[in-house]
Amino acid sequence: MPHIDLPEAPGIRALFQFRGETAKPLVELAEVLLRAPSSLSRGERELIAAYVSSRNQCRYCTGSHSAYAAAQLLGGAALVTAVKTDLATAEVSPKLRALLTIAGQVQTSGRAVTPEAIAAAKHAGATDIELHDTILIAAAFCMYNRYVDGLATVPLADDAGYTAMAPRILEHGYVGIPLGTRP
Amino acid sequence: MPHIDLPEAPGIRALFQFRGETAKPLVELAEVLLRAPSSLSRGERELIAAYVSSRNQCRYCTGSHSAYAAAQLLGGAALVTAVKTDLATAEVSPKLRALLTIAGQVQTSGRAVTPEAIAAAKHAGATDIELHDTILIAAAFCMYNRYVDGLATVPLADDAGYTAMAPRILEHGYVGIPLGTRP
Repeated sequence: MPHIDLPEAPGIRALFQFRGETAKPLVELAEVLLRAPSSLSRGERELIAAYVSSRNQCRYCTGSHSAYAAAQLLGGAALVTAVKTDLATAEVSPKLRALLTIAGQVQTSGRAVTPEAIAAAKHAGATDIELHDTILIAAAFCMYNRYVDGLATVPLADDAGYTAMAPRILEHGYVGIPLGTRP
Repeated sequence: MPHIDLPEAPGIRALFQFRGETAKPLVELAEVLLRAPSSLSRGERELIAAYVSSRNQCRYCTGSHSAYAAAQLLGGAALVTAVKTDLATAEVSPKLRALLTIAGQVQTSGRAVTPEAIAAAKHAGATDIELHDTILIAAAFCMYNRYVDGLATVPLADDAGYTAMAPRILEHGYVGIPLGTRP
């Protein structure tokens, strides 16, 4: 049960309906990070979001962003599961593995990012913008995950629910999610 | 030295100049959380930001938000230092102590927030909106702190530098900070 009196909706959507003023920059941030034009594909960026959310054990964010990643990556749900289970052996490109490694360090702490991990990503072809966006996506999900779980919002019952949400996000984006007004 | 090639500016300001598209929702979020009309004063909200940043050992965010809190709280810098040093004995109201306790739990993990801490805050008079905003401020600084340190931005040399930044923030807010355009 949520810690405060929220509208009936799963996860962060209950919070977006509860408080539209804070929801607006939160959905805009997700939109620019995960969907705006970028040399990282939308699937790759959703994978970073799902990976960090998984490390934070946030059920709602892991379920939803895993579904959005799976819907936009050639490897589908199997690849997303492989990355969350064992990044070292998952079949991703050297550059994406290096970026996910940095995202994992950010999940621990901003201070945990090592010059070695940065150098490895650059060696694998990562640009400054890609490094910037990877670190900000990872940092942002350390926020979204804490927001969702810190208020004890309710996750969906199973993966099918998250998969069902994907087509709408793929078509209309995060800015298409209905926001509330402050009660 | 920063991990990527950034404009010469301290802390998050270098990142705001590097990438204006992501900076825009980030400053708007700070503005609504820390400065928009609220039953929590601007000083109290800055204190929550400073407290979480201190727990994340983020020098730039701790320095800047401690200065902004000190400038807007009756207790000034001494009170901010007391809260960061030992929350249990700092001279804050029971409600603010309960909210800071929850913010500290959020800094650990969203899953670390206890029903007991929520009940204690409600008993001390905290409303649902105040609980919501406290948890989102704490979560947001877990993002800002990771962003600032994950890219190894450069903090200011001493507290005087942060104190000098306060009047401009108090007058023009976070939305007054100059943002860059994507290179």
